[in-house]
Amino acid sequence: MILDKINKPEDLKQLSITEMTDLADEMRKFIIKKVNVTGGHMGPNLGIVETTIALHYVFNSPVDKIVFDVSHQCYPHKMLTGRKEGFTNPENYFKYTGYTAPEESSHDIFKVGHTSTSVSLATGLAKSRDLKGENENIIALIGDGSLSGGESFEGFDNAADLNSNIIIVVNDNEMSIAENHGGLYKNLKTLRETKGNAETNFFKSLGFDYYYVDEGNNIEKLIETFKKVKDTNHPVVVHVKTLKGKGLAAAEADKESFHWINAGALDENPQTTIPAEDYNSVTNEYLYKKAKEDKSFIVINPATPGVHGFTPEFRAKLGKQFTDVGIAEEHAVAYASALAKSGSKPVLAVMSSFLQRTYDQLSQDLALNNSPVTLLIYWGGISGADATHLCTFDIPLISNIPNIVYLAPTCKEEYLKMLSWSVEQNEYPVAIRVPSGEFISTGIEDTTDYSNLNKFKLVEKGSDIAIIALGSFYRLGEKVKKQLAVKMNINATLINPKFITGIDTELLEELKKDHKIVITLEDGLVNGGFGEKITRFYGNSDMKVLNFGSKKEFTDRIPLDELYNRYHLTPELILEDIKTCL
Amino acid sequence: MILDKINKPEDLKQLSITEMTDLADEMRKFIIKKVNVTGGHMGPNLGIVETTIALHYVFNSPVDKIVFDVSHQCYPHKMLTGRKEGFTNPENYFKYTGYTAPEESSHDIFKVGHTSTSVSLATGLAKSRDLKGENENIIALIGDGSLSGGESFEGFDNAADLNSNIIIVVNDNEMSIAENHGGLYKNLKTLRETKGNAETNFFKSLGFDYYYVDEGNNIEKLIETFKKVKDTNHPVVVHVKTLKGKGLAAAEADKESFHWINAGALDENPQTTIPAEDYNSVTNEYLYKKAKEDKSFIVINPATPGVHGFTPEFRAKLGKQFTDVGIAEEHAVAYASALAKSGSKPVLAVMSSFLQRTYDQLSQDLALNNSPVTLLIYWGGISGADATHLCTFDIPLISNIPNIVYLAPTCKEEYLKMLSWSVEQNEYPVAIRVPSGEFISTGIEDTTDYSNLNKFKLVEKGSDIAIIALGSFYRLGEKVKKQLAVKMNINATLINPKFITGIDTELLEELKKDHKIVITLEDGLVNGGFGEKITRFYGNSDMKVLNFGSKKEFTDRIPLDELYNRYHLTPELILEDIKTCL
Repeated sequence: MILDKINKPEDLKQLSITEMTDLADEMRKFIIKKVNVTGGHMGPNLGIVETTIALHYVFNSPVDKIVFDVSHQCYPHKMLTGRKEGFTNPENYFKYTGYTAPEESSHDIFKVGHTSTSVSLATGLAKSRDLKGENENIIALIGDGSLSGGESFEGFDNAADLNSNIIIVVNDNEMSIAENHGGLYKNLKTLRETKGNAETNFFKSLGFDYYYVDEGNNIEKLIETFKKVKDTNHPVVVHVKTLKGKGLAAAEADKESFHWINAGALDENPQTTIPAEDYNSVTNEYLYKKAKEDKSFIVINPATPGVHGFTPEFRAKLGKQFTDVGIAEEHAVAYASALAKSGSKPVLAVMSSFLQRTYDQLSQDLALNNSPVTLLIYWGGISGADATHLCTFDIPLISNIPNIVYLAPTCKEEYLKMLSWSVEQNEYPVAIRVPSGEFISTGIEDTTDYSNLNKFKLVEKGSDIAIIALGSFYRLGEKVKKQLAVKMNINATLINPKFITGIDTELLEELKKDHKIVITLEDGLVNGGFGEKITRFYGNSDMKVLNFGSKKEFTDRIPLDELYNRYHLTPELILEDIKTCL
Repeated sequence: MILDKINKPEDLKQLSITEMTDLADEMRKFIIKKVNVTGGHMGPNLGIVETTIALHYVFNSPVDKIVFDVSHQCYPHKMLTGRKEGFTNPENYFKYTGYTAPEESSHDIFKVGHTSTSVSLATGLAKSRDLKGENENIIALIGDGSLSGGESFEGFDNAADLNSNIIIVVNDNEMSIAENHGGLYKNLKTLRETKGNAETNFFKSLGFDYYYVDEGNNIEKLIETFKKVKDTNHPVVVHVKTLKGKGLAAAEADKESFHWINAGALDENPQTTIPAEDYNSVTNEYLYKKAKEDKSFIVINPATPGVHGFTPEFRAKLGKQFTDVGIAEEHAVAYASALAKSGSKPVLAVMSSFLQRTYDQLSQDLALNNSPVTLLIYWGGISGADATHLCTFDIPLISNIPNIVYLAPTCKEEYLKMLSWSVEQNEYPVAIRVPSGEFISTGIEDTTDYSNLNKFKLVEKGSDIAIIALGSFYRLGEKVKKQLAVKMNINATLINPKFITGIDTELLEELKKDHKIVITLEDGLVNGGFGEKITRFYGNSDMKVLNFGSKKEFTDRIPLDELYNRYHLTPELILEDIKTCL
């Protein structure tokens, strides 16, 4: 096996083209096997094997620096830079992250997991090199899907202004996570069809020297072009046409489904337990029904349809009433705001972590204009995710912006009621934190009038201790209440606050009469979050208040149980903390 | 006077080209006179008079909708849409805002003050029109400077995908606030030089139909072109070359200085009281000195040099060690992060309100990678500014992101010590809130070691009440201490916390011994801010805590005194609140 001989990028330089081509096939087989066991990004990695080999053959990493955009296509890079056992040896399958990680290797420059950052980062590296009078090559590898993001454009525009070496490799596999959207992609298509010779050229319009590689999975052609641009003294784009999912028939045929796969997806009988009902299914049922009723109703999503269960069929059914804006969260919010301002009914679905891309648009384009958009925030909560994909920050992010009403449902019935209220009203921008945990249906219709803002639900009146349990931590609140009864003989009050962005001062005032302790539970960062506002309310009183949630830190693939222990988010640990107040 | 006859856009349609040309001159004179009294955006408005007249002549606002980017060029629009007395009658000079404001007129669609939003917003309006089966024209008016912003590109990319009417007027006055930066601007130059005929065309590369108006201050030519594109059934860009500052010789000659002027700038003896020393001057003295010492030191700014006193002379002196990235805050942060990661020493200067553009980059590109960048945050604090330019949100924005150290100096000496510490260290991303109020120099050297994180400074130890007074509110803390002594005979403890992003648990614990009340003072939003963390710390104790700062709301040109009264930010009102705890 050729891979046996490859322990660092220099080892590639001893190989012939034929050997490297064989190596690509070997690597692909390991990637397919490994990803099917661990789950992960399949299509992007299979498509980029040859480009990665050619880059490491021509350039001298880590002196020459390669910055990976999103970095979900870095598996072949890891295999060539001393980490192949993470792919060849099942015992090491979980040893390395699925993203570039400087703590793993000097060949990884940045910790990256959000898109569209590589060109900016590479421009900074190039400028630093120039200031220091050095002369290494700086390479950014960016996928076509990432080109639509604003940060990417800002990077390209500035990179073009460098009077020195920077090489941007555009990995054009004709796909974002799903299909691409935006005028730029028509130009990429024209460039592919003309083998890079079209007069109208986005990259040239920004001032880049431009090279096109039509056979982007042909190592020889790639090496030939990379050699031409190596040590360039000006900004260059190398536009490489690759095949996403290459070498795995199913992935080549269904690029969207195989962008990221669950463990076991390739098994003969994949364990696909599709639940009869979940938050995605009830959401999409509502969205479809509403779209049929109201022609001004529209669903907007920035390039993550898989997160929300917006299947190709669903999108087709909605037709013009569905807009995938591509990777463009800033635009998504401004666009939604204008739709609402103009009397249409937009629902914008976005994952908590990617919402971070659009703080200013939430504030200025949306909240300041008080546009009645419905934002559905997915996956919000503490998780064992990679540090790049944490979803713990959306409450501090949204809830300190004026005018937005942020709601936290605890079950299907509340969620659907909030959703329909939000869509029908015309007063506020409303965000709803789609529950991220277990699907819960109480079967009891929610008749709450949510236009009565910041009215918490007093679920059960007790005394001494009040538990204010937000959204997906409502069930934890129930458990704490039970334990307080059993272990401390206290009949605690249980409150489902529902509103994240405001407090029910009347109810909180009332609690002062017969309560000594209030605890708040929230599934996210406690700093700047929901609970601290409750604590501030009681600041001038005798009420003791404890806020439970996650700490201000980037956690990286830490199991959820361990995090719950760390943050005292189990009934037992919460009781211990309560005891310190007694 | 022709303007006498113009009370609404339709009135323009009765005028001849000659009359409209005369009208433009009349309007310009009023703008110059008014802006010299009130201060405001001079250059952008003088340059856009003819375009505005031509737009309102050809289109039918408010049925046809015009979206202004940044909207600091909307004065002529206001004059033509029923608000001319705000310009002709000195008594009404302050009646209307300097930005589009839907509450003033149905001709203003959005409240806008940040750049690069118009194309996204217009795309939303166009999509809404299409969903509803209507047929009005949707126009976005965007300056060349705003094109570099990521949100703008995301908007263009998506606008090009509309299969229907949208007209984007690019007002190319060859300037951002200062000069433009980025590869795109070379293409604009080529397009101007070729009168729009160059083969390489940024707008065409995105799929737009393209028109060029070389004489962008010639009403006849503008009308001719706007008539051609009116009722278009596809996305169109009209690239208009205009003269920034037209009609005011000084503004034509010095476009940067006359972008925005202070009141009285045109007076014979303008009242320019240049202080001998202020925070800008001491900052820039340090930056220059450091740049000379260390070739890897670099100052970065996203297109707002005037805010920081980065004059053309200062920029020239720094040469390659100064990068204006253009309006591109996202890129600025990622670029700075990479520079730091690569061993250079970047300082990024940015205004609090515009920092909002880059939350995710602060989190992912910077904090997660723990790059030792120094961020200087300007103008942070409560102010009487427009709702679009509030600087009250930076503490909640930054301080709930892990890893970043955010510092609040209270005087020149602390500020310079923090700045040099931050630049020399290699451990953390550091942000410093450049004091926004009165310039204070104590004359006492600051010898603090800021690597001892979250160590608050106990300025004076008293008892019963502790005042934790952050940054620019430290002087308010001093006043409260005095009043407590005089009026309530209490010798309060005074603390200068210095660190925004962490708390000094040891000191806070110590206070429990002989204090009953802690108050926190911060010059910004209290929600999600500094004080709430102190309150949370004391949640399980008997300590009473009061947090003072601004409320969660968008205020719009409310005088500072009024805001201080509203938020209880005077010593008298603070004492009253303290009494409620006793």
